[in-house]
Amino acid sequence: MIIQKTENSRISTFDPNNFSFGGTFIDHMIICEYEDGKWGDVKLVPYGPIPFTPAMMGVNYGQACFEGMKAYKDKDGQVFLFRPEKNFERINKSAKRLAMPEVTEEMFLDGLKALVDIDREWIPQGEGMSLYIRPLIFATEEALKARVSNKYMFAIVATPAKSYYSEPVSVKISDHYSRAANGGVGSAKAAGNYAASFYPTQLAIEEGYEQIIWTDDATHEYFEESGTMNVFVRINDTIYTPPTSEKILDGVTRDSFIQLAKKRGIEVKVEPIPVKTVIEALKSGSLKEVWGVGTAVVTTQFQALGYQGEKLALPRLSDDESYAALLKKDLVDLQNNLSEDPFGWRVVVDHVLETV
Amino acid sequence: MIIQKTENSRISTFDPNNFSFGGTFIDHMIICEYEDGKWGDVKLVPYGPIPFTPAMMGVNYGQACFEGMKAYKDKDGQVFLFRPEKNFERINKSAKRLAMPEVTEEMFLDGLKALVDIDREWIPQGEGMSLYIRPLIFATEEALKARVSNKYMFAIVATPAKSYYSEPVSVKISDHYSRAANGGVGSAKAAGNYAASFYPTQLAIEEGYEQIIWTDDATHEYFEESGTMNVFVRINDTIYTPPTSEKILDGVTRDSFIQLAKKRGIEVKVEPIPVKTVIEALKSGSLKEVWGVGTAVVTTQFQALGYQGEKLALPRLSDDESYAALLKKDLVDLQNNLSEDPFGWRVVVDHVLETV
Repeated sequence: MIIQKTENSRISTFDPNNFSFGGTFIDHMIICEYEDGKWGDVKLVPYGPIPFTPAMMGVNYGQACFEGMKAYKDKDGQVFLFRPEKNFERINKSAKRLAMPEVTEEMFLDGLKALVDIDREWIPQGEGMSLYIRPLIFATEEALKARVSNKYMFAIVATPAKSYYSEPVSVKISDHYSRAANGGVGSAKAAGNYAASFYPTQLAIEEGYEQIIWTDDATHEYFEESGTMNVFVRINDTIYTPPTSEKILDGVTRDSFIQLAKKRGIEVKVEPIPVKTVIEALKSGSLKEVWGVGTAVVTTQFQALGYQGEKLALPRLSDDESYAALLKKDLVDLQNNLSEDPFGWRVVVDHVLETV
Repeated sequence: MIIQKTENSRISTFDPNNFSFGGTFIDHMIICEYEDGKWGDVKLVPYGPIPFTPAMMGVNYGQACFEGMKAYKDKDGQVFLFRPEKNFERINKSAKRLAMPEVTEEMFLDGLKALVDIDREWIPQGEGMSLYIRPLIFATEEALKARVSNKYMFAIVATPAKSYYSEPVSVKISDHYSRAANGGVGSAKAAGNYAASFYPTQLAIEEGYEQIIWTDDATHEYFEESGTMNVFVRINDTIYTPPTSEKILDGVTRDSFIQLAKKRGIEVKVEPIPVKTVIEALKSGSLKEVWGVGTAVVTTQFQALGYQGEKLALPRLSDDESYAALLKKDLVDLQNNLSEDPFGWRVVVDHVLETV
């Protein structure tokens, strides 16, 4: 790895109590370029611009995929990644589906650790605080031909992330728009999946909702995801979530929730969730909660479901009654080294680069 | 419009008889930036790099769409665009579906004319030669949040295009992969649609085909598009093409073929095309030809269809017998000012910028 430390650290301008999530970037980034059929040197360099023309294939043909993950700092200042090998596996699944070259463990995991290590001062400390990390691969060749690119960049950039309490939201069960086709790229973290969801979400917001529960595109009879999150439904004391598929993302938070629920002895059923079953359970009183999970917010609880023009209120559970709140606390405590880690999910980021 | 002419023209290095399509860029480009809710000045500047970091939303969330169009130079050196208002309408339809700001006529049509005018020397002359033009809009804000961007760039870049004779190709009728979901972005020229098609196309190539005929994702029983082109089927002397929809692109070449066919008195039916109908017609001998149409190649004729593991040969028609060849010639002659233009499709690019 080639390491070029910044000579103009911006850390003194960073106020961990007052910053904008997503728009504040740490001092460094990882970059690695692919050309002539192979990846070049992994470089840790100052965060900053790289020259691209508007003919760059990444923005013309959407050959681009990413990961979202976090680093956490405990009360002693020790820094942890959370299940980074899951993101490493998934970025390569996404890359394969988009006909892009896979990245190596050295690029992804070592790059990640080096970046978090060198910029560990940027990780805010305290409940719910973290560093949000964005590895991505995108096509960089300049060419106006709709074909696979010959040049790519792998990069890792990161932004400090705040304690993210999210109010319960109202979600519309989609009856027209959809995020994934059978035989499409729904299970990849493909850049284009996100752009495709913005307009339908805007329409849902105009109707008084915050997010969309995506349903299958052919019949709209089954739950798929919610917003950019995996979705969970609790009927009586059983938790349901749809199986991953070529249309549904294999979320790290989703998998962690399933394992944490099982550890608590909560029954988890990974099976297709018919919209009708959820609505009937709501009407009969057996539907207890519905929520989304993802890296950025961990959990968003839902307060109402939009279905066939009606806004149907969900029960309001206290934190003691809610499985969503319980499992969120289990996960956040584990991530922040406030609890045991029987799963081996925490990965310590060692101090290595201070001597550089 | 702000005009900054290059001081280092590369035109002397351009050999119209020997260049690579798609990778050779003309001297200038149009750029226009969107910020604070509005587009700034349209600028005609030297083609070249612009600094972006890997946090640029266009490559992270795929908010990007484009157009493909051409300028033609006739034997007297007069330069024409072809139906540019269709591309203007369509880029704004794409932008709307991707929750991006629409562009103005001044940005798109005036920008286009100024760019083609100033770089008219780059347009190769002769049969099938042209300038391929790529207007695009992409998100430029640097932010790691999956939401609508607040900053965009509109750009127009261009590359000289060769006479493009395309050998007949074999196409696989898709029975698993698909390019568009119901309620998705198939009808938009969304960047992500192209990346999604690359891997399935690679698999088809490994099976001995050049392209895929995309079918509906739920049943794979109906034709949608072929590769990046609209698809036409001729049974006896009637031409069929699927109606445009939220899954099927409203192609300019498609529309031109329909109008040219009608002008010749050929019966055109715009209706869903069942795969079974095509296969039955092939087996009974009534299927005459199947072809794709698009701006880049105009027409690609198909020589075989892959269906249920079999490669079924299509009839080989002479250019005199083929509607695809006939209509291609009608279109190319019209584009190159070799025939009358009863439709008003040609738009002359006036000499304006030479005095700048």
